[in-house]
Amino acid sequence: MNNFSFFNNTKILFGEGQIANLKAEIPTNAKVMITFGGGSIKKNGIFEQVTTALADINWVEFGGIEPNPHYETCLKAVERVKAEKVDFLLAVGGGSVIDATKFIAAAAKHQGDAWEIIQSFGGAVQNALPIGCVLTLAATGSEMNPTAVVTRADTQDKLFFNSDFVRPRFSILDPQTTYTLPVRQVGNGVVDSFVHVLEQYVTYPVNAKVQDRFAEGLLSTILEDGPKALLEPKNYEVRANLMWAATMALNGLIASGVPGDWATHLIGQELTGLYGLDHGQTLAIVMPAVWTYKLAQKREKLAQYGRRVLNINEADDAVVAEQAIVRTREFFESMGVKTHLADYGLGAEVITPVVEKLQAHQFTQLGERGDITPADVAKILELAL
Amino acid sequence: MNNFSFFNNTKILFGEGQIANLKAEIPTNAKVMITFGGGSIKKNGIFEQVTTALADINWVEFGGIEPNPHYETCLKAVERVKAEKVDFLLAVGGGSVIDATKFIAAAAKHQGDAWEIIQSFGGAVQNALPIGCVLTLAATGSEMNPTAVVTRADTQDKLFFNSDFVRPRFSILDPQTTYTLPVRQVGNGVVDSFVHVLEQYVTYPVNAKVQDRFAEGLLSTILEDGPKALLEPKNYEVRANLMWAATMALNGLIASGVPGDWATHLIGQELTGLYGLDHGQTLAIVMPAVWTYKLAQKREKLAQYGRRVLNINEADDAVVAEQAIVRTREFFESMGVKTHLADYGLGAEVITPVVEKLQAHQFTQLGERGDITPADVAKILELAL
Repeated sequence: MNNFSFFNNTKILFGEGQIANLKAEIPTNAKVMITFGGGSIKKNGIFEQVTTALADINWVEFGGIEPNPHYETCLKAVERVKAEKVDFLLAVGGGSVIDATKFIAAAAKHQGDAWEIIQSFGGAVQNALPIGCVLTLAATGSEMNPTAVVTRADTQDKLFFNSDFVRPRFSILDPQTTYTLPVRQVGNGVVDSFVHVLEQYVTYPVNAKVQDRFAEGLLSTILEDGPKALLEPKNYEVRANLMWAATMALNGLIASGVPGDWATHLIGQELTGLYGLDHGQTLAIVMPAVWTYKLAQKREKLAQYGRRVLNINEADDAVVAEQAIVRTREFFESMGVKTHLADYGLGAEVITPVVEKLQAHQFTQLGERGDITPADVAKILELAL
Repeated sequence: MNNFSFFNNTKILFGEGQIANLKAEIPTNAKVMITFGGGSIKKNGIFEQVTTALADINWVEFGGIEPNPHYETCLKAVERVKAEKVDFLLAVGGGSVIDATKFIAAAAKHQGDAWEIIQSFGGAVQNALPIGCVLTLAATGSEMNPTAVVTRADTQDKLFFNSDFVRPRFSILDPQTTYTLPVRQVGNGVVDSFVHVLEQYVTYPVNAKVQDRFAEGLLSTILEDGPKALLEPKNYEVRANLMWAATMALNGLIASGVPGDWATHLIGQELTGLYGLDHGQTLAIVMPAVWTYKLAQKREKLAQYGRRVLNINEADDAVVAEQAIVRTREFFESMGVKTHLADYGLGAEVITPVVEKLQAHQFTQLGERGDITPADVAKILELAL
C-alpha cells in the first residue's frame, strides 16, 4: 500500500424524504442561490420539494446550467451572486450542476481573472462560498469530492480543478429523485461511476486489500443493479444502491494508497470538449482501447477484476484479462452506451485534434505510470475507431 | 437500504514515516499534552519520533493510562490540563489511550460533574479540546470515530459515550508502530476489528449492497492478514492492511443504512468491567454464543458471510450458517484468543452479575431487533461457558 492522506468532511443525508431536512443544514439568515440545469426539476417536483423545505430562508434561482457546464455560464452566475449578495449556493442536479456551482463558489471569491482557477488546477483558490447539494443523478461523485470540470465554450477546453474550499458542506441523496431520468442519462451515469472505480483499480497491484475489495464491491454492485435501473426505473433499492455506489466511487476513499490511471478521463474530456459527446460515451469508447493498448502492464489487475468481479474462471491471467475487456465493453453496450467512435459518426479525423488539445493542456504523461505519451494516445484512439 | 446520515471529518495520514508530518497538523502556539499508556512508546522509539516531530511546539506529557481506561485517571489528566493551560491533546497509543483522551477533552470543557458525560451517553458534551492521534494498535477504530469507552474503577462500570466534539482532528497511522506489539494485543486487536464489522453485518438483510460488500472486504482482509501478523510481525504490508481495515471497520461507513447488533459489545463490556477480561477476549466469548442463540433470525446474513467470506460452498443456508459460527470461533482461537468463559477461569457465577449490570445500565433490549432481554442474556452466557 502506498502512503496517503485522506480527508472528506461532506455530510451525507441519504434516503427517501431527506430533502425535507434541508433547512437544518443551511446557516440561518443565509441568502441562498439555487443552481440547476435545463429545468427538469421544475417538472418532476424536486424544485418544489426544495423550496418548500427551505421555508423562510431567502433564495434566488439560477437555471440553465448545461451538461459539461460552460465557464461563460458560470461567470453569469457569479455576477448574479454578487448582485444579489448571495452567501450560500445550493446545487440541485447532477454532476454538471454541482461542478458549475463549485466553480461559481470559487470564482465569486476570486480576485483577478476567474480562468486562473482552472489554469492553476485549483491552486489559486483561496476561499469559496459554501455549497450544499441535492443530487438528482448517480454518476460523477461530485457531491462528495473537491473536484469540478468546466468547459470553455469559445476554445473547446474542458478542464478540471480541485480545491478543498469547494467541497460540499452537505449533500442530500434521495434515490427517488432519479426515477424520471432519461435512459441515456442513466446509462451514462452507470458507465461514469463504473469507470471511476476502474481508473483507481485496473492499474498495478500494491497489495492494498481493503481498497481493492471496496473497488470490487462497487463494481459488482453497479454491474448487478445498473441494468436493473433501465428495466425498473422506480425500483427504490436499485436506485439507492447505484446512488451510494456512485458517491463512494469518487470520494477519495478507494483512491487512497493506490495508483490512479485517469488516462481514459483525460482523453475523454478532450473528445467532449471538441465534439460534444456525452462524458459517459467518451469513457465507454476510450477505456477498452486504453486497456487493450496497455494490456501487458495491466494484466494482473485486469485478471483480478475478471475473476473477482466478472466471475471469469480461467487459469491463465492473459485469457482472463482479455475476456475482462470484452465483457466490460459488453456491459457498457448493455447500458445503451456505444463503445466505438464510429458509433457516434466520428473517425480517424479526431486523432490529431485530440492529441493537440492534450498537448496544449500539458497532459503528455498519462496513465498510472505516466508513460502514455501523445504518440500513444494516437494509437489508443486508433483502437477506438 | 435504510435512510442514514454520514459525516466523518477526521483527516488520516497513513503510512511509514508519517509521524514526521505531525507538526503541520497542530495549531501554531498550541500547548500540547501528549497522552499515553504504560510507557512502551518510550522504549520503542515512538515517543521520541513524536517529540522530534513536534519540534518547537510546547508540550507536556501524561502517561499511565490503563487498558480499559479509568474515569479516575482521566480526571487526574483533566486537572493537569487545567493547571498547564493545555489547549491540544495528542493521544499516542491504541484505543484505550484515544478513548481516555476523548473523555479528557470533553471533561476539560464540561461544567459540573464529569460523569454526566457518560450518563448522557455524550449528549451533555457541548464542547471539547481538539484531539490528534498517533495510532499504535490496529483494533478499536477510535482514531476515526466519535466514540469512547471508559471504566469507573470504583463501581466496575464500563460505559461509552459519543460526541462529534471529540472526533479526532487528525490521526496518524504508521503501520510500523505496531511491529513490536505483544502477541496478546495483536490477537485482541484482530478479534476486535473483526467483531466490529460483524456487529454491523450479521443482522438481517436490507439489500445494502455497497455496505455488505465493504463489510465482506474488511472481513476477508482481516481473516487473511490477521494470522500473518502473528507469524511475520514486521511485515509492513500485513500491518498496513490490518491497520486500515480496523479503522474502516468502525468509522461509521459500513454502519450507514444497515441495522446494527452490538449485543456482543454490550455484554462483553460488563464482563470486562466486572472481571477485567481483555475487550477482545470478551468479544470472542460472547459473539459465537449470541449467534447460536439467535441463529434463526441471523441465518440469512450468516449464510451470506459463510459463502462470500469463508467460502463455505453448501447449498443449505442452515448448514452454512452453523459452519460459519464454528469457523469464526476457530479463527478467534487461531489468533490466540480463547472463546469460552471457562478458558478464563470463569463459570456460571458470572451470569447474574452481568445481567444485573446490564439492567443497571438500562441495556435491556439488545440486538438489531432490540429483542434480547436480560433473560436472553442469561441463556446466551450459558452458551458461552
